Amino acid sequence: MRETQVLTHIFGHAASLPAVFPQILVGAGHDCALVATGPRTLLKVDSVIEGVHFAPGTSIDRIAYKAIARAVSDIAAMAGTPRAALAACVLPRTMTAQAAKDLYDAAALHCASFGCPLVGGDTSSHDGPLWLSITVIGDPHPGVVPLRSNAKPGDHLYVTGMLGGSLGSDQMGRHLSFTPRLGEAAFLAGSLGTSLHAMMDLSDGLGIDAGRIATASGISMVMDESRIPIHADAAGINAALGDGEDHELLFTVGPEAVLPAQCPSTGTPFTRIGQVMEGSGVWLRSRRGEVLNISRMGYEHR
Amino acid sequence: MRETQVLTHIFGHAASLPAVFPQILVGAGHDCALVATGPRTLLKVDSVIEGVHFAPGTSIDRIAYKAIARAVSDIAAMAGTPRAALAACVLPRTMTAQAAKDLYDAAALHCASFGCPLVGGDTSSHDGPLWLSITVIGDPHPGVVPLRSNAKPGDHLYVTGMLGGSLGSDQMGRHLSFTPRLGEAAFLAGSLGTSLHAMMDLSDGLGIDAGRIATASGISMVMDESRIPIHADAAGINAALGDGEDHELLFTVGPEAVLPAQCPSTGTPFTRIGQVMEGSGVWLRSRRGEVLNISRMGYEHR
Repeated sequence: MRETQVLTHIFGHAASLPAVFPQILVGAGHDCALVATGPRTLLKVDSVIEGVHFAPGTSIDRIAYKAIARAVSDIAAMAGTPRAALAACVLPRTMTAQAAKDLYDAAALHCASFGCPLVGGDTSSHDGPLWLSITVIGDPHPGVVPLRSNAKPGDHLYVTGMLGGSLGSDQMGRHLSFTPRLGEAAFLAGSLGTSLHAMMDLSDGLGIDAGRIATASGISMVMDESRIPIHADAAGINAALGDGEDHELLFTVGPEAVLPAQCPSTGTPFTRIGQVMEGSGVWLRSRRGEVLNISRMGYEHR
Repeated sequence: MRETQVLTHIFGHAASLPAVFPQILVGAGHDCALVATGPRTLLKVDSVIEGVHFAPGTSIDRIAYKAIARAVSDIAAMAGTPRAALAACVLPRTMTAQAAKDLYDAAALHCASFGCPLVGGDTSSHDGPLWLSITVIGDPHPGVVPLRSNAKPGDHLYVTGMLGGSLGSDQMGRHLSFTPRLGEAAFLAGSLGTSLHAMMDLSDGLGIDAGRIATASGISMVMDESRIPIHADAAGINAALGDGEDHELLFTVGPEAVLPAQCPSTGTPFTRIGQVMEGSGVWLRSRRGEVLNISRMGYEHR
């Protein structure tokens, strides 16, 4: 497969983008894309690699979906709106030209569906696993940028959705099809404003990820085991705390904030799972009254 | 090597960026970076992979430099100014943690030196070659965006610098150390305005790359062999036409434009090598008076 063939295919998609997405001033086919932006722009790159983020045998469509949804989920975690995307990939030399085109078609489709059309790409091939990297730029919410470092003692700690078991018994579970919480984040930022303090998306597991907010903010968190929303796919509380790849939002709000039980526009539950305190670390109050350190519960990519 | 270790190292760099680069509102360490932008933003991703874009044995510093300079060169080709960068990489599993840190240090240094600090990254490891992908965003020039599709019959065709031989006899040549033509592009856009019509950077070779402008603009180009500036490293005219990886600017200007012989701020020569005409294809008038089709002269990555 020639790079030129693949690029021609990409350009075919991109040439029509400015008509559909007015923010795209110049699509692919030039040295750079040109995108209309506001005064501040969110930037994120995230990648998936075969054997780490998806199992051999995963469909092309799901590989593309996961790569894009991961990056879009990070835009959601900043309460932003995705605006444009770039893809870079390294394809196994054994991959057919048709499969490569299918990958770009799927990437273009899913990027467009999230409102961030694919405006550029780069492709190479090698003797190794499939690797796909997605850059997404987005507009931040005009009212609030909920950084990891902004949790405050006294905040209430919330999570969207249900946690655990995303990998699935056959590795073909929800981690390939989760919905980035763009609507939920927009609702929270819009209704809470600056009472929405810290937010992030759960990728590595509730314990480790909560620890990131705790470290960045210089605070501690205490969660109640009885409040953790455990997904039906999860094997109990430990799975909900440590499986990772939930891509739900973990967020802290000032005690003055009033939240509905679920997001009005999507129905996703908002569950209060604990609170922010002075100190350090992430702690779980178990059903039996023990207080356990869970700040290492989760997945570390090696 | 744990991803966490490498990420901590990256965050160490990034935390201090807002103090030095005022456009960086939030550096790495959050779900996204946040960058001050103008009303329009240039976007580019480009990648290097061991064995394709650099030979085994190339220093970490030069690998990082080439990856970044390639993406910055595309910003230059649109007459833009680099503002921020993201890196994604896949490291060979055999690479030491120190080498991985050195790679990020080098990437951070070179990004900062081009004015586009590294504000985020993603890293994985695998059993395969080193792969480094760089996304750069930039501000377009306020007066002109010289697209590939904007060449017009009657335009004069120019190139910056000298062409050919960039790979070097030992693969350690100029392709690892070229200077992206940011200063030259800024001078051209600033002094010529909308008389600067089409521009691109030469990555695959003068023949193939000129063909890209010709196709995008629906025009033909005729060059004079006697005018092509051949680099001292190049093995004659064919090397200058087809070696690629020069990362010089190829541009067309309206016949009313007056250019100095070299860029006032950098001394890089501007050489008029031909002109734009009606028709299609890229043609070379040889010293013997033959007219040759050179639109396939260059390198196609497979």
